[in-house]
Amino acid sequence: MIIIGERINSSRKQIYEAMRSRNAELLQKEALIQYEAGANYIDCNAAALGVDEEPQVLSWAVSVIQDVVEVPICIDSPNPEAVANALKVHRGRALINSITAETSKMQKLISLALEWKARVVALCMDDNGIPKGVEERLCIAERLVEALTTAGVSEDDIFIDPLVLPIGVDNQAGLMVLESIAQLRKRFKGVHILIGLTNISHGMPQRRWLNRSFLVMAMAHGLDSVICDPTDKALMALMIASETLLGLDEFCMRYINAARKGILEL
Amino acid sequence: MIIIGERINSSRKQIYEAMRSRNAELLQKEALIQYEAGANYIDCNAAALGVDEEPQVLSWAVSVIQDVVEVPICIDSPNPEAVANALKVHRGRALINSITAETSKMQKLISLALEWKARVVALCMDDNGIPKGVEERLCIAERLVEALTTAGVSEDDIFIDPLVLPIGVDNQAGLMVLESIAQLRKRFKGVHILIGLTNISHGMPQRRWLNRSFLVMAMAHGLDSVICDPTDKALMALMIASETLLGLDEFCMRYINAARKGILEL
Repeated sequence: MIIIGERINSSRKQIYEAMRSRNAELLQKEALIQYEAGANYIDCNAAALGVDEEPQVLSWAVSVIQDVVEVPICIDSPNPEAVANALKVHRGRALINSITAETSKMQKLISLALEWKARVVALCMDDNGIPKGVEERLCIAERLVEALTTAGVSEDDIFIDPLVLPIGVDNQAGLMVLESIAQLRKRFKGVHILIGLTNISHGMPQRRWLNRSFLVMAMAHGLDSVICDPTDKALMALMIASETLLGLDEFCMRYINAARKGILEL
Repeated sequence: MIIIGERINSSRKQIYEAMRSRNAELLQKEALIQYEAGANYIDCNAAALGVDEEPQVLSWAVSVIQDVVEVPICIDSPNPEAVANALKVHRGRALINSITAETSKMQKLISLALEWKARVVALCMDDNGIPKGVEERLCIAERLVEALTTAGVSEDDIFIDPLVLPIGVDNQAGLMVLESIAQLRKRFKGVHILIGLTNISHGMPQRRWLNRSFLVMAMAHGLDSVICDPTDKALMALMIASETLLGLDEFCMRYINAARKGILEL
């Protein structure tokens, strides 16, 4: 699994305030705990600061995070200007989060991805917003993968996100995403499939059990990357167990090593 | 989900000794904690006591367990004589664990099920032992369901078990069972699909994370009943979350109620 740590997001009050006051230490601490927990990317979102401040704050945050962790950043912004600014200071190959099939922004973001050799999260939505069903998601995914690969982005650099909606709003939302993941996996062999895990439990109490169950189910349907909180030790234990159960862990050595290291003792 | 509590099994040293010394109190305590944790059946296995003692001990155990819990017993024995004995003392409708397609015993056990109106676990194995793949499991399931329904057992009283083998022996064992569950669910609408969950982690360290992940995956493929340890609170929390995610929990009320009761606070 490719793990993108979600904790540095300006929708969290503590992060918002740290960004406003340029508190590098807090962001660095959040980056470090996620890196140590196994994150392959650190997501960084400053969108809540508003259009005027976001571009500047996002670049600052990317810089201070990369001062303490060796992994690349998942540059999380709907604003091409903020993404462009952040890419300029980023070291290594960033992951742009996200491109959609919205005509006004798609080409601009694809150009940025090519210019900076960045990888991209491609959300299954277009000018009509978030689609209702599986079929529409597949159609949009087709268009996104087509546009990206035609422009020269390799399949391995594309992370398709079918878009998770809250189970509290529609109790079929989980099944729909699982089916979308299975279909995407069948259709696209070389692209990654990603979800923003915690969307599933939005508005619910005791969200972590929904998040944990949904990760396991999604992995069993073909998910290979996830935006989540890697400091949730039970989530990570389930992730390791799931890879083993899905035949991705030869001789179960990763599981046995995790047990030896004490990671599964909880 | 239909939950069958697995803890009263003579393969556990403590249970074996309690059975040998007719320690009713220990069995009753084990029955009660499982009942209180949500078990719909209490499995009772005395096979390790050997052919001579088993029939007598099993009946005794069924009686003393039913003295303290209101749920029926899952009578767990490969020996038709022991099953017959236990059914005589059982109150209510038992679940016989198990019938196989082995010619020598199948008809005897089906007769017992009909005589006592018991429900039955039907294992996907025959005179050739445990089959290797998905196809053979489906063929045996066909024969079992055919034999049972022809004899007059209703589909709702049949629990097909595709047989779980340890992931530590074959790292494709999990995928094979998941595919078997999906195919069984597609083929048989009215029968239950059951697994003995903890077989998956046999021989592995820190087994519980493998058990927990595998339950979630199996549910996402169509499992609706399980032999497991219901006193594992994390397992039960994942089970509740999974039912919600699979659209089986209208307005998420069961999940929300579990949260209110504090069941998910761990």
